[in-house]
Order: sequence, then C-alpha cells, then structure tokens
Amino acid sequence: MTAENPHLAAVVDFVAALYQSGVRDVCISPGSRSTPLVVSFARHGGYRIWTLLDERSAGFFALGLARASGRPVALLCTSGTAAGNYLPALMEAWADGVPLVVLTADRPPELYATGSNQTADQRKLYGRYVKLDFDMPVPDGGEMLRRHARATAWRAVAAAQSYPPGPVHINWPFREPLLPPHHAAAGDGARNGVPEAADGRGGLAAWWGPQPVPPEAAVAHVARLVAASRRPLIVCGPQDDPLLPPALLRLAAAAGAPVLADPLSQVRSFAGRDEHVICHYDVWLRAARWRERLAPDLVLRVGAAPVSKVLAESLAAWPARQVVIDPVLPWRDPWFVATDVVTAHPVSTIAEVAAALPPAASAWWRRWRRVDEAARAAVRAALATSGSRIAFEGRLYAELADWLPDGAVLFVGNSMPVRHLDAYFAPRAVGLRVLANRGVSGIDGVVSSAAGVAAAGVGPVVLVIGDVSFYHDLGALHAVVRHGLSLVVVLVNNRGGGIFSFLPQRAHPDTFSFFRTEHDVSFAHAVAAYGGRYARVEDWAALRRQMEHDLAAGGLSVIEIPTDAEQDVAWQADVVRAVAAALADGEEGEGGGDA
Amino acid sequence: MTAENPHLAAVVDFVAALYQSGVRDVCISPGSRSTPLVVSFARHGGYRIWTLLDERSAGFFALGLARASGRPVALLCTSGTAAGNYLPALMEAWADGVPLVVLTADRPPELYATGSNQTADQRKLYGRYVKLDFDMPVPDGGEMLRRHARATAWRAVAAAQSYPPGPVHINWPFREPLLPPHHAAAGDGARNGVPEAADGRGGLAAWWGPQPVPPEAAVAHVARLVAASRRPLIVCGPQDDPLLPPALLRLAAAAGAPVLADPLSQVRSFAGRDEHVICHYDVWLRAARWRERLAPDLVLRVGAAPVSKVLAESLAAWPARQVVIDPVLPWRDPWFVATDVVTAHPVSTIAEVAAALPPAASAWWRRWRRVDEAARAAVRAALATSGSRIAFEGRLYAELADWLPDGAVLFVGNSMPVRHLDAYFAPRAVGLRVLANRGVSGIDGVVSSAAGVAAAGVGPVVLVIGDVSFYHDLGALHAVVRHGLSLVVVLVNNRGGGIFSFLPQRAHPDTFSFFRTEHDVSFAHAVAAYGGRYARVEDWAALRRQMEHDLAAGGLSVIEIPTDAEQDVAWQADVVRAVAAALADGEEGEGGGDA
Repeated sequence: MTAENPHLAAVVDFVAALYQSGVRDVCISPGSRSTPLVVSFARHGGYRIWTLLDERSAGFFALGLARASGRPVALLCTSGTAAGNYLPALMEAWADGVPLVVLTADRPPELYATGSNQTADQRKLYGRYVKLDFDMPVPDGGEMLRRHARATAWRAVAAAQSYPPGPVHINWPFREPLLPPHHAAAGDGARNGVPEAADGRGGLAAWWGPQPVPPEAAVAHVARLVAASRRPLIVCGPQDDPLLPPALLRLAAAAGAPVLADPLSQVRSFAGRDEHVICHYDVWLRAARWRERLAPDLVLRVGAAPVSKVLAESLAAWPARQVVIDPVLPWRDPWFVATDVVTAHPVSTIAEVAAALPPAASAWWRRWRRVDEAARAAVRAALATSGSRIAFEGRLYAELADWLPDGAVLFVGNSMPVRHLDAYFAPRAVGLRVLANRGVSGIDGVVSSAAGVAAAGVGPVVLVIGDVSFYHDLGALHAVVRHGLSLVVVLVNNRGGGIFSFLPQRAHPDTFSFFRTEHDVSFAHAVAAYGGRYARVEDWAALRRQMEHDLAAGGLSVIEIPTDAEQDVAWQADVVRAVAAALADGEEGEGGGDA
Repeated sequence: MTAENPHLAAVVDFVAALYQSGVRDVCISPGSRSTPLVVSFARHGGYRIWTLLDERSAGFFALGLARASGRPVALLCTSGTAAGNYLPALMEAWADGVPLVVLTADRPPELYATGSNQTADQRKLYGRYVKLDFDMPVPDGGEMLRRHARATAWRAVAAAQSYPPGPVHINWPFREPLLPPHHAAAGDGARNGVPEAADGRGGLAAWWGPQPVPPEAAVAHVARLVAASRRPLIVCGPQDDPLLPPALLRLAAAAGAPVLADPLSQVRSFAGRDEHVICHYDVWLRAARWRERLAPDLVLRVGAAPVSKVLAESLAAWPARQVVIDPVLPWRDPWFVATDVVTAHPVSTIAEVAAALPPAASAWWRRWRRVDEAARAAVRAALATSGSRIAFEGRLYAELADWLPDGAVLFVGNSMPVRHLDAYFAPRAVGLRVLANRGVSGIDGVVSSAAGVAAAGVGPVVLVIGDVSFYHDLGALHAVVRHGLSLVVVLVNNRGGGIFSFLPQRAHPDTFSFFRTEHDVSFAHAVAAYGGRYARVEDWAALRRQMEHDLAAGGLSVIEIPTDAEQDVAWQADVVRAVAAALADGEEGEGGGDA
C-alpha cells in the first residue's frame, strides 16, 4: 500500500464496493474536485469508463446504457453547475424507472456559503427526482467511515435497482489533497493479491430485492373477470421488460383477446406477426364507427400510457371495466377509468392469470384482427402512392418495419417520430427492441440516450430523430466517435418543430413562428465537426442502401432526409381518409357475432 | 375582445403586468404546453423575444443578458425535462446575484402522478436555487385569479430584483384548450385603445426595493480603523456594479491604500491607469519575500472571492485586521479571517467611509505601486521573449489589454482563461467591462452567456474561451446567428482541459488521461454548421488583424488559436521566475519607510 493520502481510503473502498454490488459502467465528466473518485475508478481495473465532456449528455448516455443493459450505471462529475446538468436525465430516469447512481463531488461543508469558488449547496440538489440521496461525511481515513462508504455503495445500488428502479444521488465532499491512496480496497484483496487495508465490513456478499408478486385473490379476481368477458381487450403501453411480450401473448390466446400493442411495448416489435397483435389502431380507431362497433366490455392494461392519442380517447370513452396491472404507485391511469387495480409485477401477474383461465372460447379478437389487416393493406397502398421520392415522413416507419434486421434496436425521438412510429410501424423482423425516452418525453438528450444504448452492445442501433431534437444534443456525436460506438442516425429534417403543424397553434399565423422555429443549421458540417459520416438522400431506395451500408460499416453515420411539415399534415390526412374508405368498403363482410 | 378561451385571460394580464414591472426581454424555448404564455408574449408587442431552441442555452443566455443589461429577464419553456435544463444557469444566477424570472408551463395538477405524458412534478423543481417559487392555480377566467396573476408578476419581479438579486420561479399549469383570448390586458387599455377586460387590480403603479445602507456607527467604526492603519490595503473581488470603481478609488486616495483589483472587479478594467490600482499581484505575490515585506495591517474587502489563489493564500495568512463590506448573508469569507463585517451595499458604505476620513497621510501605497510597475515591465519583457508566433496562452491577455477598444466587453471562460487573465491583464483602454460566470465558475453555458451579453447591446463583445468549454456550449452559436448578434470568439484550443496540466493530477500518468481529455473536434466545421466566420491564426499580429476585422464586420466570428498545455506550464514558470529575478534586482532601491 502506497498511501498518498490515506484520509481518502474510504473512496477506494467505495469504488470497489460499487463494483461488487453490480455496477460495471461509469460515465465520467472531467473535473478536479472529483479526483479521489476518478482516480479510484481508473485504478480499479474492472470498470468500463466512459468519458463524456458534457454532463447533460453524460446523464442521458448513462440513461440509455442502463436502459439497454438492465444494469445500474454510475455517473460522476465535479462540483458546481456540472452537477446541475444531470437534472433533465434524472427526471427521465425517475419517471421511467431507470437505475442510475449519481456521484457528485463537492467541496467540504466548511466552505458552504462562504463565497468560496465553485461551491454550491448540492445537498438534495435533485429534489424528488432521486429515490434516495446520501450526504457523505468528508473522508477521514478512519475505519468507521470506510465501513460507511462500503455500506453506502451497496445501499445506494440496492435503492436504485429495487422496484421500481430509479436514480439515487451520493454527494461526496472532499478536502485537499485530492489524490487517493494507491491501496487495494478492503474486501478486494483476493482479486489482486495485495493485503487488505481494513476488515472490509460494510460491504455485503449479496443483496436481493423484493419481488412484487400479486396475492392469490387478485389473480383469481382478474381471471374471473376475463373469463366472464365476451369482449376482452388487452392494452400494452410502453415498457421494456423482454419477459412481458410472451406472457402477454399467452394470456391473449387464453382469453381470446386482441392486444393493442404500443410501438414501445416491445410486444409489437418482438411479435408483430402474432395474430392477436393489433398495430394500426392509431389510424383506424379514429373512426367513431369502429370505436363503437369494437367496443370492449373489459380492458386489461399494462405498461405506461400509450403514445396514441386516439387510443387514449377510446380508453377514456369506452364504458368497459378496466383492470390495471402496474407495479408503480400511484398506478398510472391519466383518465381515471381504472376499476380494478393490481399493484404487482405485470409478468408474474399475467402469467398467473393466464394459467388460471379456462380454455378460450371467444373468437372476438378475430374481428379486431380482420380490421387491422385491412387497415395494414390500406396503409401500405396509401403510402405507396407517395412514390419513390421521400415525401411523407410517416412512410419512414413502414419502410423501417421492412428493413430493420433481426435483433436491431430502434431508438425514436419524441414529438413526431414516436407518433408516426405508432401509426405506421408493424415490423417483420423478430427480436427488435424499440426504445424512446417516454418517461417525461423530452426532446433533449435523445442522441446521448441512443449513444448509451449503442454502448451497451446489445445489437445494431438506429436512431430516428427530428432536426430540433438533433440540434439540442449534437454534442453527443462526440461521445459516439470518441468511444468507437456504432450508431446510424436517420435525421428527419423539416427545419423546425414539425409537430406544431399538427396542433391548433397552426391556425394562428400571427404567433406561429414562435412554435415552428425555422433554422438553417448545416448538419453536414456539424457531423463533420465530430468526424462522422454524413449523407443526404431523397428517395426511399437510396435511404435503404445507405442504411444497409452504414449498419455494415459501423461507426457513426448520419443520414439526413428532407421533409416538409406542411405537406406532412396533408399526407397524414390522406392516409387516414384512404384507410377509412377501405375499411368502409369491407365493412359488410366483417360484421358478425362476438363468438 | 375576441375571446378564444376566456379562461386564460389571467395569462394575458400576467404578461402585461410583467412588462409594467420592468421586464423587457423574454427568452422562449418552443413547446406546446406553454402556448398561453408564448402567444401572450408574442401579441403583447412590447417585448424583445429571443427564441432559443435549447433550454440550457436559453438559461445562460438570459443570465448574460440580465447581467449586462441590469434588468430582470424572463425565461419560458414547456413542461417536463425542458424545465430541468435551466438548473445550471439558475445555480450560477443564484450564486452571482442575477435577476431572472423563470416561467415553466405545466400540465394541470389532476394529471400529476397518473402516468400522463410529459408530466413531471415541477413544484419546487429548483430547490434552493431560486429566491421564491410560485405555484400558480390553473387559470379559470375569474377576476380573483386575474388579480392574482397581475400581483404575482409584480411580486416575482420585486423578489428577483431585491438585494441581492437572483432567480425566481413561476410554475404555471394549463388545461386545454391552450390559445389565450385576444383581448387587451387589464390595465393595458391606454396603450392600445381597446376597452379594459377587468379592473386591473393586482398590478402596481410602482415598486421600490430596500437600499441596504450602513448604519452611521458602522461607517465611523470603519473610518477609525482605516485612519489608524499605517498599512491599509483594499481588495476588490469580482463584482459588476459600475458605481463601485470610482467610489473605491476615492477611498484609496483618501486612505493612501493600494487596491488589489481582481480582473473581474471592473476596477482594473475601468481604471487600470489609476496609480492606486495593483494588477500583477498574482505573479509577484508568489514570492514569500514580497508577501512579508508588504504585509498590510488592515485589509478592506469588497466583492466576491478573488480569482487569484496566491492572493487568497496571502489573505488567509496575513495577520491583519480584515474588514468585509458585503450585502450578502452570510458574508463571503472562505478563509474565516474577517474581523469586522458590514452587511450593506458596498458603494454607499465606501463613499461614506471615504468622506469620513481625514486627509491621507500615508504614502505606503507607492511601495506596492513601484513593485507592481516593475512586475509589469518584467512580465512584458518575459512575454516578448516568446516571439511573434502564438506559444504561451497567458500572453493573449496582455495583448488583449493593448488591443481592446474603449467600451468593449470582455467575457472570459472559467478554468485557464480567467486565471491567465488575472496574471496578465492590465488594460490601457477605458470603460472596459470584464465579465465571467464566477458565481459557481462552471465551464458550461459560457458561449450562451456571452451571447446574452451581446444581446444587451452594451458594446462590442469578445469572448475568450477554452476548447472544452466551447465544445460544451457549441449550440449557442445558433442563437448568435439567428438573432443577428455580434460576437467575436477567441478560441484557445489546447485540445482538452489544459488546467489539469497545472494541477497535481499531472504527476500521475496512470490516470491523467481521465483529466486531460484529448479530442479531435473540428471547430472549423462546427462554426460552419451555424453559419459563422472562422479563422485559425498562429501569430499575434494575425490575431490582432483578424480581431479588428471581425469587430468591424460584426456578426459571429470564431478565431481559433492553437496552444499546447505542456508548454504552457513551462512558459508560466519562466515568466514567474523572470519577474522574481527582476524584482530581486530592484529590491534595494525599493526599500524604505511606510510613510
């Protein structure tokens, strides 16, 4: 043990304990006050270290990495405004249940409120957007604080992972000198053969979190409701547990129920060809006729609130009994229509309900399926009329549904991309994952989040993003290149906030320019600044070729496609009309009984 | 009155009252939930509206604009993570006393914690980093809430401006539909001839804030201390009240005291040629000999903590009595050496102390002046040895001291720029303003802050910034071009975190790469992306020509100068050595009595 500054031994122990508790990735933004932690992470040897110069970007990168890897990710920055930059990512992580361990270096308490440089009060900095916050004592080299540091690592990671997962904050004040001792962490001796510096207490050998399983009575109750229903409907909102889709499809089969699968539910992308899965409801449920004819008598909901406004309005309007299975408290139900709520893990609840059901009798789900198939064909036909040149932005998602390779991850931006995705994405490939930041649905940090997903190494990653959102987080391209990640960005450029063309603000020309904010950012130059490949394409065939090329080549590539927000509104209306007309034609053959 | 949605009348009234209370600038980031406010601001007709696509950048832009204009500036964004992006700028504004009025649109309370889209709990989002926070009721169109809205505008602006100034937060939930009525705001009728919509109560005709003047006893006490001192010393840290420098120099003359003028004190830049002003202490006080020989028996301090670490160490070590005049509570004194504290406005306190003093007897300030003059000559000579090519980064500030035109604003980045500025900047021009974000001293948001200063239209603005800080806030260039602002950026590119080469972390090659984060960002391309001019120069004469050209041409220009962090450390040591040697040579002639 060469002890530069033995008072900092607790930091080395903390970093070792964080590793033992399961953290493998740390996103570090450089700084001076954080030196004890930076050096301890660097010397540990076990961590993947992601250096990111911008803390806001680092926060979202960690979010994407934790989301895709399923593991908690650590964030580390220096004192002051640097720490403030994490807030947007923590709001999203908190809302969407992503485990993050935020480490902020701080100046010691004797400098608070003295006017000392770069000293801000960082205690409880993130307010309610962390599950727990720890204010560490200034390390003194004593055994008690070393134990406490090890224990805090385990306690923090447990809190971050425990259901529902989320961010935790550890604020750590340091006194100079800042270089930590070069010793093996206590409890770490076996790994590198160096004698232990302390007895290692505080760290655990293992931790298990609670499993929120449903009580038997709840399962029996829900099973009775489903069995008694003549028109049961399953709605799966955004969620990314890979175990949910198979469980849900077994329930759908057992119940004879259609599954309205949000594009971010993983149900549509994992199993788009399962006959119970309904993909195009956002287009065809706009017709009151269909909302009424196919009204369910029972709705069973899991996941977050669906992207589709049309579906939301239907759920709010149908007089059906509505069962919500949600591990989050208070349960998610923005329309206050839930009638029966189970606060438990959806996978186990659904599997138990499916097992408790009698053999399915109802074939009413086939009515939904027939309409959805007809809608699919009508959508395809309508999109085809837009020709080979890129015109209607919505078609991109139908094309991607055909092109994306098995196992790919599609990350979509908020605002228009996720809405068009909802309407037009019915993928052919298997094992796709479709992700977005839908906890708070910001347009910020989207490129960083996708880069974090790429860092998880779970499959080829394609990001589809609008120009304002891309501009907002351009700096994230640096992290992609710096860390040798592979990311294909499809940049849909309508030159400023296309979503507003779909909203009532459009009707007021005196103020519309403050919503649709035209700009002339040259993304070709911006991508070149960071050393990525850039291409601009104007027809669908070229886009597909370019994307296939870029996926094979790896690295960072940005493919820009120009669109027009005004035309987009017209196209969207055309498609909806065409689908409505096609369904009206086929309506007679569709009628029939419920079973 | 054409009332689209009369329930939103209070918003129109609020926007009018905010104007009446003194706000003239609003920085808007587009969004949907904020529509009632966006449309009301746009239709008001009196506001300068700055559209900024990135809320983090908008926060710092507003900070720079409020700092340079001396007026409170409003910020407006939509709900969700957008609001979280303001936190870094609010931390800086809070620490540095800059008045901002933050308006966050919110979804209505019935959607909190329901899983509704883009809904985050924004109440108390900024924790202790705002002076006050207001949770508005959802507007109902009734007279009581209209009064309340007008009153809240006045109360918020008063809180933001009241000493010490700072940010306030108004969170405003809105229910759909979101388009406000097209009526004249109550109390606004005279301006546009439209009948008033309500009685206009709630808004004030005028508001005056408290003036923190010192009690007579305090003035007499401080004057006695100064009169009794044989070796009084005045230290002025960062501050930007233009009234302080003349007051302070009158006190210096009356007391026979040298003034150690921080580069951000405005004393050095407003009055660099006043003989009482000492500029190069950061270089020559490094020698213990001078710290001891010129030790004061009384120190009188105003402003924030000085940039110079050498001066800080001297202040902590000198056994002198130390008077602190500071309107902030608790008073700023990171070394706990204050002995006599006056919590009052420094300008009035200092003017009254100066008036109460007997005619000055002491000429001890001339000893400081002689050493500082010798140091200045030695610094100049040492810098000249570096030749015509740009090598030592510190020389930039000596060159700028000669080049900057009268009335210019120099904005400097944190980390190395402000430190080199401290050591080498002794300007010739008059009426210069030197600004930086020294509240919390972050490297984030610096370009946006300088753009905000440019938006205030107070003089030509030159920003000197390092490459990591520039990368952190590249997107701000968009705002400069979009709004037709003029800003000359001198980009000092040492390719990653040069300050760490001056810190102990450098001695540890196993971990140094996590501090000095090399990068290959092409700033030429980045500037082109936003449509700015770009030049790279390698010698001082070319830099001066380019800067003069760019100042005359207006618009956005970025001049990149390449430096080398390792060589910089060596140069800095050379200059310090040369100055020490020069001062040692002249030491004999300098000695002498105190008076």
